[in-house]
Amino acid sequence: MATVSNRRVILKRYVTGFPSEDDMEVVTAEAPPLAVPTGSSAVVVKNLYISCDPYMRHRMTRHEVPNYVPDYVPGEVLTNYGVMKVISSGHADFKTGDFVWGLTGWEEYTLIDHPETLSKINHPELPLSYYTGVMALPGLTSYAGFFEVCKPKKGDYVFVSAASGAVGQIVGQLAKITGCYVVGSAGSDEKVNLLKTKFGFDDAFNYKKEPDLDAVLKRYFPEGIDIYFKNVGGVTLDAVLPNMRLCGRIAACGMISQYNLEQPEGVRNLFYLVTRRLRMEGFLVFDYYGMYRRFEEEMARYLKEGKIVYVEDIVEGLDAAPAALIGLFTGRNVGKQLVAVSQE
Amino acid sequence: MATVSNRRVILKRYVTGFPSEDDMEVVTAEAPPLAVPTGSSAVVVKNLYISCDPYMRHRMTRHEVPNYVPDYVPGEVLTNYGVMKVISSGHADFKTGDFVWGLTGWEEYTLIDHPETLSKINHPELPLSYYTGVMALPGLTSYAGFFEVCKPKKGDYVFVSAASGAVGQIVGQLAKITGCYVVGSAGSDEKVNLLKTKFGFDDAFNYKKEPDLDAVLKRYFPEGIDIYFKNVGGVTLDAVLPNMRLCGRIAACGMISQYNLEQPEGVRNLFYLVTRRLRMEGFLVFDYYGMYRRFEEEMARYLKEGKIVYVEDIVEGLDAAPAALIGLFTGRNVGKQLVAVSQE
Repeated sequence: MATVSNRRVILKRYVTGFPSEDDMEVVTAEAPPLAVPTGSSAVVVKNLYISCDPYMRHRMTRHEVPNYVPDYVPGEVLTNYGVMKVISSGHADFKTGDFVWGLTGWEEYTLIDHPETLSKINHPELPLSYYTGVMALPGLTSYAGFFEVCKPKKGDYVFVSAASGAVGQIVGQLAKITGCYVVGSAGSDEKVNLLKTKFGFDDAFNYKKEPDLDAVLKRYFPEGIDIYFKNVGGVTLDAVLPNMRLCGRIAACGMISQYNLEQPEGVRNLFYLVTRRLRMEGFLVFDYYGMYRRFEEEMARYLKEGKIVYVEDIVEGLDAAPAALIGLFTGRNVGKQLVAVSQE
Repeated sequence: MATVSNRRVILKRYVTGFPSEDDMEVVTAEAPPLAVPTGSSAVVVKNLYISCDPYMRHRMTRHEVPNYVPDYVPGEVLTNYGVMKVISSGHADFKTGDFVWGLTGWEEYTLIDHPETLSKINHPELPLSYYTGVMALPGLTSYAGFFEVCKPKKGDYVFVSAASGAVGQIVGQLAKITGCYVVGSAGSDEKVNLLKTKFGFDDAFNYKKEPDLDAVLKRYFPEGIDIYFKNVGGVTLDAVLPNMRLCGRIAACGMISQYNLEQPEGVRNLFYLVTRRLRMEGFLVFDYYGMYRRFEEEMARYLKEGKIVYVEDIVEGLDAAPAALIGLFTGRNVGKQLVAVSQE
């Protein structure tokens, strides 16, 4: 079989501080053979959609001590979760033409040696791109983080930061389904409007227009906050802690604003953990893979019933991928950021 | 009945920053009538031992927003937990001569209007003073904080700060009983020696001699820490966070070193909550009153069997009480600090 070219995004150099498009490079290489060799259990996929996620910044720095995900390597292709079509399979669980989601490369074609890491798409009647977000890890992050970590009760006061992002928009809607009062913060009036009109948040504010975060939280939560679903770090946490109610819960699912800081801002109000008996828990979605199937069915039902709506920010083509990734850290995206790599 | 005099410790003024003996005053006032009036359900107690606890610093400052305990009032007697003898009772549950523990005044005689807040001493065969510490709230704090908040497993690596104090010494011994590996930190060689020779910690170090806390934690916990029982704040937490193991637990039972800081030190390493899936939980012993009786029996048994040993730092007389309280914040005490007010 003739070789074909493979457009791909590689890491150019390890990143320190704020990342830029120049830290990546879009190159054309030779694609892997588009048919798996006889006897192999690998699959070859055509990448349809790839996900841009904040945690990728973490992987662009070299860590002396191995962390929860491996670092990227300069010169090598970036990897992340995506939606793919199987074009050749040596594995009994997959056949040519199957739609799958899982870890893949930021490139057109990827040879996947361990297809056990891939999942079949059980609801192809939904937009396939949803399997980079609401139906995949961001969705499971929201679902497990909210229900398992935050343990919400009807009537709880819920505050969601970065609320229009991939995770925040879903958390807010799950909170409404649960009967909570939900306020979100976001970084532009457009996003705030989205929260209130499209996602059904009870209220929302633009944190960039609010110099006194403590005052704004007291205004939106005169009774205090029961649940803080924390998508950003540092300063916000310090403003939230004094506004937490007794036995409140803080789920820390990521700290976007801190990814790029060599010296993160110090949190000074942790004393409230004691006086208010707060529980603050960090979690990673990897710990909740076991509940994926239950989540998948429930979320598919919510989407079809219109109980959850979902907004994506899709850029076209791998050449636009580096800018889309960087845009996550400046808040450029409106909704879940992803890249459409190829047509089916 | 003739009135008698009543030596008592009053708050002289609200405290800002580090407290001093001058913020209190020992005065002589008139005691309450030593017999309760007919028809009253109050009791009058003679105070035998009073407890000095770090949280009292918190009550010496005026808080605009009510907190978990009421503020002290200048000119009025300090209150805290103590061990008392009932000398007159209008309440069916108590009779003259009973030994009780509970909230009382820093004075010789106290009229207690609501004796429901008092508890009978069910193990008077132990030293009565133990009911200011290991048999009372510090003991219950250790027991509930370790077993309920930290949820220890045999073999867990446990780090205890302020380990020779009222709570730390008990937590360390409960951890040993559970089959954990326990290292404590304390602020003098004398205390470190106590931890290793008397309380049975596997190891201990003097944090004042260790400029690089991260390095010392890596030395004592090459495999990392599963449970951090946090008795002090700020800097220590930042050093501990990177040394926590996956799914580690941090119980925050108080932050002595922060009580006196107007602007507490910022904690910068909270990102580890996410990457290591840590749970950090603040708790107050008040939430665990319901398990007191179970705790009391278990702890009495440990003490009688010699499985837990207990060290107290007792000063004699109310005149020494202000200095004893201040000494908590400079680490002067060795073991649980209390004041012997009167003989039985």
